[in-house]
Amino acid sequence: MFESAELGHTIDKATYESEVPKLREALLDAQFDLAQKAAFPVIILIGGVDGAGKGETANLLNEWMDPRHIHAHAMGEKSDEEQERPPMWRFWRALPPKGRVGIFFGSWYTDPIIERVLRRTRPAQLAQSIERINRFEHMLTDEGALILKFWFHLSKDAQKKRLKALEKDPKTRWRVTDTDWERFKLYEKFRKVSEYTLRETSTGEAPWIVVEGSDFRYRGLTVGKILLDAMRNRLDHPATPAPPSIAPLQAPLDKVDVLGKLDMTRTLSKQAYETALEKYQGKLNLLTRHPEFRKLSVIAVFEGSDAGGKGGAIRRITGALDARFCHIIPVAAPTEEERAQPYLWRFWRHIPRTGRVTIFDRSWYGRVLVERVEKFCSEADWMRAYSEINDFEEQLAAHNIVVVKFWLAITKDEQLRRFKEREQIGFKRFKITEEDWRNREKWDDYERAVCEMVDRTSTEIAPWTLVEANDKNFARIKILKTLCQRIEAAMQ
Amino acid sequence: MFESAELGHTIDKATYESEVPKLREALLDAQFDLAQKAAFPVIILIGGVDGAGKGETANLLNEWMDPRHIHAHAMGEKSDEEQERPPMWRFWRALPPKGRVGIFFGSWYTDPIIERVLRRTRPAQLAQSIERINRFEHMLTDEGALILKFWFHLSKDAQKKRLKALEKDPKTRWRVTDTDWERFKLYEKFRKVSEYTLRETSTGEAPWIVVEGSDFRYRGLTVGKILLDAMRNRLDHPATPAPPSIAPLQAPLDKVDVLGKLDMTRTLSKQAYETALEKYQGKLNLLTRHPEFRKLSVIAVFEGSDAGGKGGAIRRITGALDARFCHIIPVAAPTEEERAQPYLWRFWRHIPRTGRVTIFDRSWYGRVLVERVEKFCSEADWMRAYSEINDFEEQLAAHNIVVVKFWLAITKDEQLRRFKEREQIGFKRFKITEEDWRNREKWDDYERAVCEMVDRTSTEIAPWTLVEANDKNFARIKILKTLCQRIEAAMQ
Repeated sequence: MFESAELGHTIDKATYESEVPKLREALLDAQFDLAQKAAFPVIILIGGVDGAGKGETANLLNEWMDPRHIHAHAMGEKSDEEQERPPMWRFWRALPPKGRVGIFFGSWYTDPIIERVLRRTRPAQLAQSIERINRFEHMLTDEGALILKFWFHLSKDAQKKRLKALEKDPKTRWRVTDTDWERFKLYEKFRKVSEYTLRETSTGEAPWIVVEGSDFRYRGLTVGKILLDAMRNRLDHPATPAPPSIAPLQAPLDKVDVLGKLDMTRTLSKQAYETALEKYQGKLNLLTRHPEFRKLSVIAVFEGSDAGGKGGAIRRITGALDARFCHIIPVAAPTEEERAQPYLWRFWRHIPRTGRVTIFDRSWYGRVLVERVEKFCSEADWMRAYSEINDFEEQLAAHNIVVVKFWLAITKDEQLRRFKEREQIGFKRFKITEEDWRNREKWDDYERAVCEMVDRTSTEIAPWTLVEANDKNFARIKILKTLCQRIEAAMQ
Repeated sequence: MFESAELGHTIDKATYESEVPKLREALLDAQFDLAQKAAFPVIILIGGVDGAGKGETANLLNEWMDPRHIHAHAMGEKSDEEQERPPMWRFWRALPPKGRVGIFFGSWYTDPIIERVLRRTRPAQLAQSIERINRFEHMLTDEGALILKFWFHLSKDAQKKRLKALEKDPKTRWRVTDTDWERFKLYEKFRKVSEYTLRETSTGEAPWIVVEGSDFRYRGLTVGKILLDAMRNRLDHPATPAPPSIAPLQAPLDKVDVLGKLDMTRTLSKQAYETALEKYQGKLNLLTRHPEFRKLSVIAVFEGSDAGGKGGAIRRITGALDARFCHIIPVAAPTEEERAQPYLWRFWRHIPRTGRVTIFDRSWYGRVLVERVEKFCSEADWMRAYSEINDFEEQLAAHNIVVVKFWLAITKDEQLRRFKEREQIGFKRFKITEEDWRNREKWDDYERAVCEMVDRTSTEIAPWTLVEANDKNFARIKILKTLCQRIEAAMQ
């Protein structure tokens, strides 16, 4: 795969100087259109061998383009903040919004390749990283991103020459470190691992582009022209998402579903409730102050029918916790900034550090509930969301995050009673809106969406707990108890 | 993920009997339209726990639909034929063509799941199988296939009851084997591995549909209705392929490429040629008669410019081999049968058994050469072909198949000389057509396609050998020598 990047490509000075001004103008034009339309983000990955001009090329693009709409990220050592989150968190937070260009100098490929070259991981682990990368990039392209992956290559001889040349010049000497020479010794291994990784991750939607890195004019002009063509191509031919292969799934033919099977008559007396509340709140408090708890974190997701009692249940949890280590994220319509990003971005940004409890009052499940029922997104979008959500939760679970998900179910009659009650009681009136009444008309559609959500996302690593919530006492205790059980299980 | 399939779903007899006639009619209608339009194949996978009615459902569909256009495959033990090919070969040969329905009772999921349940594989191996499956299904949906994946589930209690009931009835007793009861003991493991596999392979394009299997009316009607909806949905809303994210790649800016770097003046004297020919033909013959050779097989791919000398070179190889174990596959335009299948199907069918040499005179690379240049397929199609081809060759290599690929390069002048010679010499006249002259006009486009093909598909496991073929003697010896070297390396 590297044959063409070992031919000694060069561009002479005269050609370069006549080409660059035209290219810059065209790039600025394309960037302007991109910012105006704000239809998609451009994600540029720059990887390859040391000394092949990765950094210079990032700088060159920065220089050529409008720096207000381009952002380069050097992904070096992980910060404390980053170490306490799943590995992909640092990349999620750096993703460019629609209309912008993000350059990743060092990317999600760096660690998997380097770790394997240094024999710190086994082949199967690299294969798993590659699988995760392919899913991630597939999601990005499904979300409309334009991904350009440049691999800067040098033959072994060329790399040696280049490192020596950099070392010789007092102005560039600082750029060659001992690490560079140590890595040079591993050239063959690096080449082998890179070739395998590039081969397995070069897809029709996001192919690798291998560029010979020895001549700065050649590599700069090549990257610039490919970037320009790709941007123009996408700006002038917007992609239309294909419909999903299969029709939306039907309701079970016998109308029997997980919600219908709940025993909605379950209650708890006031006295039993008070005793249990004290017991489980105390337990929860102790658990979160246990030294073992500092190794993990908790994400509790609350979804449920309107007026299902999410707020009250959440307060019974926060009441037992240290407010400094517990955050509630109320999820409403996405902000402008959030709409410019892939769907899951606005949840990734709230992933807690270790030792924390984060409560989502509504969550990423909005995609397969309200957005599905109200047709805020296409069928293809919510169909793929199930697997994207499972991937997301798997990454959380793999990072010692306990994901606890509650669906608070009430009957249609009980909802009506609560809606009316809310309208009557002054301090509750703000809780009931026209929208609540409208949603109620789509009760059956919502039930169908909930059942399918449970079917497709209740997994061993992040199961759903369906809560019979007609009786608030019963619901709150079931929630507290489940939460304590899950934390206990994780601490063992 | 199995919650909804443990609720005891049933359909009463009266409902079933009133629904089935309507459903059958609609299914036959859809099947008729499918056969008429022949726009896509329908691939139905049926997996799940033993005793959940997998076989009965396959039979039911067969009964309901037009048996001429539906074909069920029981994928049990592998035949000798199948064992000597890569694992996916048996599925490729059974794929339904466009316009037809194929039911896979036991599929590419069976082995990975069972092997892991029986602890014959490690988790990482299952993960790698899943990665391979996802790539395969992604290719199928890219090729337009409608994939429906049904998983028949039973709770542990329900499975026990079902096996006992089958055993009690003399008419069905034969269906319960000792293996079934042994597997029943592994219920929990099976459930866990299945859940993980389903989660990782449930995509937006090909989601799993979990069906409770205890009631035959419920499961039959459910599968039938989902199948009908999905077929109608696709027949009425044909998918339009999205354009690729990035523009076709440009030629290198300095016009330096791997073809241009070849030394086209290389020659071999007649005398040196005769000596070398004898030497390498003898060597090749010995190698293929070596006992070690029976463990592997060889696929040699010949591509090259028109009049590049492929035929002559191939004859120098076959001249050294036992004709019973050596086959030449001349690749021309695909047949009607081949056009109704995914692109790589017509090459999979020629994969040799072990101990064989198969020579492809032109090959699967047509996709990224003639089909690209002549625009016989869309840009998206040939862009994804590179990774599909790499996946394909990786599967061959993993199955001890030595893949040797030759590009026979001649200069434009030499081609002209040979074209003219062919026109003059009577017995060579059939070798030159109008098309050859037309292709010649697109020389530069072909060169670009060749260089990109080498860049994207010359891999460590299946490298390209570029052959300087202006001198036929030189070319033939280089080819024979390379072939011997590759076989020798594989035998060590």
